[in-house]
Amino acid sequence: MSHNTFGHLFRVTTFGESHGIAIGCVVDGCPPLIPLTNEDIQHDLDRRRPGQSRFTTQRQEPDTVKILSGVMAHPETGVQVTTGTPIALLIENTDQRSKDYSEIKDKFRPGHADFTYEAKYGLRDYRGGGRSSARETATRVAAGAIARKILPDVKVRGALVQIGPHKIDRDKWDWDEIARNPFFCPDKDSAAFYETYLDGIRKSGSSIGAVIEVVAEGVPAGWGAPIYAKLDGELAAAMMSINAVKGVEIGAGFGAAELSGEENADEMRTGNDGTRFLSNNAGGVLGGISTGQPVVVRFAVKPTSSILSPRKTVDRAGADTDIMTKGRHDPCVGIRAVPVGEAMMACVLADHFLRHRGQVGG
Amino acid sequence: MSHNTFGHLFRVTTFGESHGIAIGCVVDGCPPLIPLTNEDIQHDLDRRRPGQSRFTTQRQEPDTVKILSGVMAHPETGVQVTTGTPIALLIENTDQRSKDYSEIKDKFRPGHADFTYEAKYGLRDYRGGGRSSARETATRVAAGAIARKILPDVKVRGALVQIGPHKIDRDKWDWDEIARNPFFCPDKDSAAFYETYLDGIRKSGSSIGAVIEVVAEGVPAGWGAPIYAKLDGELAAAMMSINAVKGVEIGAGFGAAELSGEENADEMRTGNDGTRFLSNNAGGVLGGISTGQPVVVRFAVKPTSSILSPRKTVDRAGADTDIMTKGRHDPCVGIRAVPVGEAMMACVLADHFLRHRGQVGG
Amino acid sequence: MSHNTFGHLFRVTTFGESHGIAIGCVVDGCPPLIPLTNEDIQHDLDRRRPGQSRFTTQRQEPDTVKILSGVMAHPETGVQVTTGTPIALLIENTDQRSKDYSEIKDKFRPGHADFTYEAKYGLRDYRGGGRSSARETATRVAAGAIARKILPDVKVRGALVQIGPHKIDRDKWDWDEIARNPFFCPDKDSAAFYETYLDGIRKSGSSIGAVIEVVAEGVPAGWGAPIYAKLDGELAAAMMSINAVKGVEIGAGFGAAELSGEENADEMRTGNDGTRFLSNNAGGVLGGISTGQPVVVRFAVKPTSSILSPRKTVDRAGADTDIMTKGRHDPCVGIRAVPVGEAMMACVLADHFLRHRGQVGG
Amino acid sequence: MSHNTFGHLFRVTTFGESHGIAIGCVVDGCPPLIPLTNEDIQHDLDRRRPGQSRFTTQRQEPDTVKILSGVMAHPETGVQVTTGTPIALLIENTDQRSKDYSEIKDKFRPGHADFTYEAKYGLRDYRGGGRSSARETATRVAAGAIARKILPDVKVRGALVQIGPHKIDRDKWDWDEIARNPFFCPDKDSAAFYETYLDGIRKSGSSIGAVIEVVAEGVPAGWGAPIYAKLDGELAAAMMSINAVKGVEIGAGFGAAELSGEENADEMRTGNDGTRFLSNNAGGVLGGISTGQPVVVRFAVKPTSSILSPRKTVDRAGADTDIMTKGRHDPCVGIRAVPVGEAMMACVLADHFLRHRGQVGG
Repeated sequence: MSHNTFGHLFRVTTFGESHGIAIGCVVDGCPPLIPLTNEDIQHDLDRRRPGQSRFTTQRQEPDTVKILSGVMAHPETGVQVTTGTPIALLIENTDQRSKDYSEIKDKFRPGHADFTYEAKYGLRDYRGGGRSSARETATRVAAGAIARKILPDVKVRGALVQIGPHKIDRDKWDWDEIARNPFFCPDKDSAAFYETYLDGIRKSGSSIGAVIEVVAEGVPAGWGAPIYAKLDGELAAAMMSINAVKGVEIGAGFGAAELSGEENADEMRTGNDGTRFLSNNAGGVLGGISTGQPVVVRFAVKPTSSILSPRKTVDRAGADTDIMTKGRHDPCVGIRAVPVGEAMMACVLADHFLRHRGQVGG
Repeated sequence: MSHNTFGHLFRVTTFGESHGIAIGCVVDGCPPLIPLTNEDIQHDLDRRRPGQSRFTTQRQEPDTVKILSGVMAHPETGVQVTTGTPIALLIENTDQRSKDYSEIKDKFRPGHADFTYEAKYGLRDYRGGGRSSARETATRVAAGAIARKILPDVKVRGALVQIGPHKIDRDKWDWDEIARNPFFCPDKDSAAFYETYLDGIRKSGSSIGAVIEVVAEGVPAGWGAPIYAKLDGELAAAMMSINAVKGVEIGAGFGAAELSGEENADEMRTGNDGTRFLSNNAGGVLGGISTGQPVVVRFAVKPTSSILSPRKTVDRAGADTDIMTKGRHDPCVGIRAVPVGEAMMACVLADHFLRHRGQVGG
Repeated sequence: MSHNTFGHLFRVTTFGESHGIAIGCVVDGCPPLIPLTNEDIQHDLDRRRPGQSRFTTQRQEPDTVKILSGVMAHPETGVQVTTGTPIALLIENTDQRSKDYSEIKDKFRPGHADFTYEAKYGLRDYRGGGRSSARETATRVAAGAIARKILPDVKVRGALVQIGPHKIDRDKWDWDEIARNPFFCPDKDSAAFYETYLDGIRKSGSSIGAVIEVVAEGVPAGWGAPIYAKLDGELAAAMMSINAVKGVEIGAGFGAAELSGEENADEMRTGNDGTRFLSNNAGGVLGGISTGQPVVVRFAVKPTSSILSPRKTVDRAGADTDIMTKGRHDPCVGIRAVPVGEAMMACVLADHFLRHRGQVGG
Repeated sequence: MSHNTFGHLFRVTTFGESHGIAIGCVVDGCPPLIPLTNEDIQHDLDRRRPGQSRFTTQRQEPDTVKILSGVMAHPETGVQVTTGTPIALLIENTDQRSKDYSEIKDKFRPGHADFTYEAKYGLRDYRGGGRSSARETATRVAAGAIARKILPDVKVRGALVQIGPHKIDRDKWDWDEIARNPFFCPDKDSAAFYETYLDGIRKSGSSIGAVIEVVAEGVPAGWGAPIYAKLDGELAAAMMSINAVKGVEIGAGFGAAELSGEENADEMRTGNDGTRFLSNNAGGVLGGISTGQPVVVRFAVKPTSSILSPRKTVDRAGADTDIMTKGRHDPCVGIRAVPVGEAMMACVLADHFLRHRGQVGG
């Protein structure tokens, strides 16, 4: 029962605080003989890295990852491969600027975990949120890069599909657009709109929420498990564990509540390439087990609570006061949640892939 | 790593199939010396029991629970109490009517777990869905009744807040109404409307989705845990594990995506009874830890896939065919999900209460 | 974190008290499509059943097992097979004679768990030891029978190799003798000696300890895992969890402390049937992973603490007193520990077999 | 299900190979507000550090530990304390000398885990045993130092009680002697004898086994748990997980097999300081729960398999060959197992202390 570990056969334990010496993780359960280099991991980390556009925090962190264990040059090929032992990854913190936070040391920032950490632990790391900072998600992305190496035939991709009340036009969905705008937005026109829209929010010192969609293609039928280890249940927990996430849905999601049985249940017909479904309201999961259709998850990210407007709050002594959060923050934290959501999807799938390979019942 | 167990310190392992001899569960981790009788559990089971109105399945199951272990008469008081050892609960199946299902033995019902169980296990229990049947949720309700006994100062209540596209009027919310209509609906007028609405759906052999809200009052600040054991993460997994659930949200949920930081972050002011919040968009959870506000979870339930209209499907041999599901089914399975959602909330809270009592870090 | 569950992929959760309504277990993680009948389980239970000779407790329990879930007739062959869902097993208690125990209700029996259960839970089930009774081991034997079905090419056999100071003559080891005497003793002559020896102990109302050896043949090289999931580590925990066990050793065990590196390390030579070892001091495990040699575990069982001689003790109020345990007890509980040790070995191996099949690293 | 993690509420995950960049661990579940400095950990590490006498490996490792996360200066006192978040510890490897091992790259060293790692993973880290090296135990000692901080009223001490066939004289037991000889031996005269004895073994390039005893004083009655989470069961697994350990016993251990019920069961009398026992054959544990007496565990350590004599073995291609292990090794690895055994005892007790504090049943 760890608070800092997820996964069963593919297990990730993360550590580190926003303004500590380093953050990192231990990936346990990775099969042996999988080629793995620093670059494999760095590539994914760079997609999440802060300071890459004016729409994300200006904190400058190179986020250079170091593999401490679990790999070696293969005795015959010389290619660096996993050995089956735990893979420890380290990312040193460099741009910490702790002094930015000293004045909020004794006040609870509304919408942040300040009050609750203090209630639980009797103290909190006020420097940038400490452990509750989204900085922790860098280690998830690093772990996700390893998960992807275990899943060579599965493609996991995420996209931002809504900022504030503005949803993308799904008919214009083009995965290639994702890399062409700073929002991971698959709809070119919406991306253009978001640029102006977010500039306004950024300049006013405000923030806004977003919705992210993550899709896994290539997952065969039969992964996942019934009852309390359902693929969708574990995806829900994984996505909800991401900072600022307040809702998760699979396939038709909340929309399914409005449908009739005739509209919702995906009919089946045998295609050229085996059994297939005529729609995917299920989001690729029935009874907790994959159907062979794309696995589709969406999650809602609340707006950053760090904003420039003064807010009513209380201090550690219980006195009423006001607070205004300076520091460097994302006007829309949802943007950088895209690679994090992909990483969580990849990790959950890698875990279920390993369970499936053992054909484990239960 | 069990597929049939949930919880950490308060652990529930369930077993049994829709048309087997019996269903049941083992509740492990219940503290000793808690008064517990069959009646405590039966009371909750009766709220979920099928066949109580024309809006739920007509299967007749008395759902009589038997405590097999883990309790004894207290040596001094004679009151039956828990002993700290595992509490096994048994519910025998009586009204099984297996023959109803024989003709769908070789066809996959769209929207059900038939195809995926077959893909995973190489066979499936075609009798009423076997293990994937919502019948399993009776054991969750039984376990939840024990969880409630551990949480005497916490009130866990659920309500149906939407059927199809029809949401209740939240201004008319009255918890007392819940027990007065067959929908667990807190809005009297909506309940009246649902009666007519669902009669239409029932008579046409169709089905419809719903949204359920579960609220826990009395949870103090500081329960829950960071990162991968977040209270909301575990609630999301718990609710998503309920049959037919496709979405989960906490507090403002998906609505938070549309809010600005100013609108979303709950401000704080010191009240007479200690620190409090001026709103509850957080749904009682910040950073995975309870705030002291009510914990609010909503989940979307898809419409039953068992409907009278013929549907396109394939059979076990891969040939295209049609299927029409007879048998006795709920026109809106969401209704009976209300006590199940309450039970899951109670179990997750009992688990976190025990962790909190040990003041466990991590 | 359950106190009543063991195993990871092959998981067993047991419940029930000595004098409750029933005992039982839930076996989770059994692969699907394995033929399984009541008889398969009953066969093993009958080997452990009390009251079969004058050297075991005279409590009469038919120990009839009932499979409540997890099996069905295969749709094509009609053979009863596992479905991959949890297998619940129930054994009703019949011969409970609770009144035998009423007079020790307030006294702590030396050598039993009376005092410690009271210290931990604030009450204890004084009727036959409640949960701490060796009666719980019947459920282990039942689970072990399922484990054996998963391991068709592995032969797990146990033998009693010492009673009191009297060790068997290992040169006379004959597995066929096990079934011919009431001691599971592989040495005919020692068995004859034990008969007289134990009669003396039994008649004097005393008891005596024993050592059991369990051997698994057919385990291929590569099962098990490093560090904290070592095959020998998990076997040690499994055997130590059996009532009255005070020591566990693998291969040369404590004898290895007296050896030099030359004597102890098993040399290797390539045999006709692949790589083999020239000795087996390792007991079939190196670095926590199986070598392909027989896996050999021994464990020491202390004498029953229930004896006729009056013993110094204290009562629940803290006053000094004496106690004499009547009731029906085993003069040498080690005897019935043989099938229990086999069951634990089978369960641990089934768990590692499933992990191995998934080729899980970590 | 991790192979590299142990503990439940106090959880330790270790990583790193003998000749990799670094070794380390993540300690999860440590309560907040416990003062903790590098020095606290370094002190214990220095007791285990290699190269401190001629009786341990001459590898020179400073074993300097670095706390990467989980601590901060208390906002009021300035004292460095734990925060309740995961504590990551890092020890860089410095003296690696990989070339020593290049010639054994393709041969399996008898008695080592070379053959079994290759069988399990398809490759092995031949540099100093990789993950299977006793170097990993440094991280256990580091974790154990944190466990001790959680257990301020419990004293955990280990002693070497046997080398080869030579047992210490228990009547001469003096804990103060432990620090005065390089063997952690509590009997001055035996220590003097071991010096000469081990010099002979060391000079001949041989090795010898040992027995270690670890005692925990101050453990109150009621820690531990029944059935599969027994304190002695978890201690057995913990000790057996230490490199080269082949046997574990509690209290009278294997000696209990030779005792009668009258001799073995510890009688009770009420002492001035509450209930006490008149002997401690139970080793402080009854029914898996602590009695309030000292918890006593012994474990047998086999002789190092790295010796100078040529040994029969096979190579990776399956051909017969001979091998002679050069490199720097311990003539009696049992010696350095003393602080490791203490660390494992401290970790298991810290885990059970946290469970006890929550008064968790189950």
